[in-house]
Amino acid sequence: MRLAVIPGDGIGPEVITEALKVLGEVAPSVETTTYDLGASRWHATGELLPESVLGELRQHDAILLGAVGDPTVPSGILERGLLLRLRFELDHHVNLRPARLYPGVRGPLADTSAEIDMVVVREGTEGPYAGNGGLLRKDTEHEIATEVSVNTAFGIRRVVADAFKRAQERPRKHLTLVHKTNVLLHAGSLWSRIVEEVSLEHPDVTVAYSHVDAATIHLVTDPARFDVIVTDNLFGDIITDLAAAVTGGIGLAASGNLDITRRNPSMFEPVHGSAPDIAGQGLADPTAAVLSVSLLLDHLGQRESARRIEASVAFDLATRDQNNPGSTHAIGDRLAALVSS
Amino acid sequence: MRLAVIPGDGIGPEVITEALKVLGEVAPSVETTTYDLGASRWHATGELLPESVLGELRQHDAILLGAVGDPTVPSGILERGLLLRLRFELDHHVNLRPARLYPGVRGPLADTSAEIDMVVVREGTEGPYAGNGGLLRKDTEHEIATEVSVNTAFGIRRVVADAFKRAQERPRKHLTLVHKTNVLLHAGSLWSRIVEEVSLEHPDVTVAYSHVDAATIHLVTDPARFDVIVTDNLFGDIITDLAAAVTGGIGLAASGNLDITRRNPSMFEPVHGSAPDIAGQGLADPTAAVLSVSLLLDHLGQRESARRIEASVAFDLATRDQNNPGSTHAIGDRLAALVSS
Ligand SMILES: CC(C)[C@H](C(=O)O)[C@@H](O)C(=O)O
Ligand SMILES: CC(C)[C@H](C(=O)O)[C@@H](O)C(=O)O
Repeated sequence: MRLAVIPGDGIGPEVITEALKVLGEVAPSVETTTYDLGASRWHATGELLPESVLGELRQHDAILLGAVGDPTVPSGILERGLLLRLRFELDHHVNLRPARLYPGVRGPLADTSAEIDMVVVREGTEGPYAGNGGLLRKDTEHEIATEVSVNTAFGIRRVVADAFKRAQERPRKHLTLVHKTNVLLHAGSLWSRIVEEVSLEHPDVTVAYSHVDAATIHLVTDPARFDVIVTDNLFGDIITDLAAAVTGGIGLAASGNLDITRRNPSMFEPVHGSAPDIAGQGLADPTAAVLSVSLLLDHLGQRESARRIEASVAFDLATRDQNNPGSTHAIGDRLAALVSS
Repeated sequence: MRLAVIPGDGIGPEVITEALKVLGEVAPSVETTTYDLGASRWHATGELLPESVLGELRQHDAILLGAVGDPTVPSGILERGLLLRLRFELDHHVNLRPARLYPGVRGPLADTSAEIDMVVVREGTEGPYAGNGGLLRKDTEHEIATEVSVNTAFGIRRVVADAFKRAQERPRKHLTLVHKTNVLLHAGSLWSRIVEEVSLEHPDVTVAYSHVDAATIHLVTDPARFDVIVTDNLFGDIITDLAAAVTGGIGLAASGNLDITRRNPSMFEPVHGSAPDIAGQGLADPTAAVLSVSLLLDHLGQRESARRIEASVAFDLATRDQNNPGSTHAIGDRLAALVSS
């Protein structure tokens, strides 16, 4: 396996070190190449993602990314120029974000009995993230700014099909479309039509619909209702942060940016950001990065190793001192030991 | 005071009956005209909001609306043709949504010590709600659907100015812009510029920024951080449902759709929908409708009456049996008695 590693900014490098430590235990022969991309490269050279680097990344089986973002770089530069550019260039149309409340983890909700175990399939290459839109009469009192959400039958169908396939394989076989079809009539009708069409191929998957605003209510009052959620790029961004919060925080949330055609390497990353305020202090929880490695192995067909990592994380979460889980290194060491035991 | 009443669909009429009962106690001379708009009128006549009715509505000092929406009407018809049409025609640019955790109310969060008391100023007449966009190659595999978020300096400035004014009058004097400036670069830069500009006129208001995805996390892990939030139409839709949920549910959440220039009557409505599943059974909580009357009176300068209603609600919430608050009528009777006592 040839793995490209982009540690990135802030706590990215710290959590990636621990994730690679754990990966080394189950896949000792993995070949890694590290790419220096992010804030410091941009400051030093003005480069975000040179074509040559993009070409090299394409030669790998998968990419592991830490985090991107720094307060010294204007908002949007690294996000659009590096992170989103990778997702778009590598056609990462399925942004896969499981949210599970592990035993022993205390989330913010009072009801601790709910069994939260959902997977959000977020569309990753279109919608309001297309970057379409513009400014007119900039910096005047008559300025107009537009953002165009672009939604295609092609783009939606491949994501909806993937979500149904995942629902089909899960015990509850339940899928919820999250959108805002009562206001965004054009995009809403297209999403609804395609979910309806694909559902005909999966008669044993039950289908529900929730407006995105109502979905945020359900996520805090009855999160157990969700099994697989399929949704657009922006709604997926919002509800996966909330889903991560109710399952114990973004310190635990992993994600995969998948090209399910496998023409391009998929990219795995913790949902959390670069957290510059705690960078370099050993305070970051590497668990999300480690779980991202588990998703990576699962995607590459190494199911056994993936499960072993997830089980080790589950064991550690059930037994760790929640108020004092240990340093970044200490957690990584514990997880590595569990995985190899 | 001339008040137009639109009871609407589902539980709308039930909660409006109680809201008017309470209003009658503080403003016995109010003149009300009821307008039959909503699902049944649409079924009977195909009409959503006839021009003549719109003209009559404009002659009132304010509008009180119950709820709009019915499962027998295709999604979007009533929403766009009636509710949003009212908001747009009457230039309801400030969609005001307070979220306060009243003593005695149990929300879904484990941390019951947090003092949640925020006001969301949601832009109400543009953004992704503009209705701009369209379909190409409809019903084919090559269909494309767009939604255009339209943001103007004019539209943003008046809302941001209102939000700063409200922040200025509150003890904490804190304002948070919620947006997604790292992805929606055009709209994001315009919102950021205007918040920065208006902040110069309010040097004692502290300003923070939160991405909408992070804001959903804060709303469940640290909601007390928020004082005034200003945000766009769609983000406001999403986070106010979540804010309502963490403060005890949409049974309690009130809203005002304000034309702050007072050229058009403002419209007050509970945040909840028509809840057809519980309609006609006396199960709906009229508290949100009653609190909407309080917002209405406040907007019309009847501060004393507004405060009396809010205090009565606060007392009832602190003393009611949370598991068994009583029927729609019973709650309305209790609140009316408290207000008149
Ligand atoms: C950093 C940002 C561009 C990104 C997104 O909006 O997708 C992040 O929030 C995420 O969810 O991965
Ligand atoms: C019913 C719907 C059109 C409306 C909205 O999206 O604004 C509702 O959700 C609200 O928040 O008042």
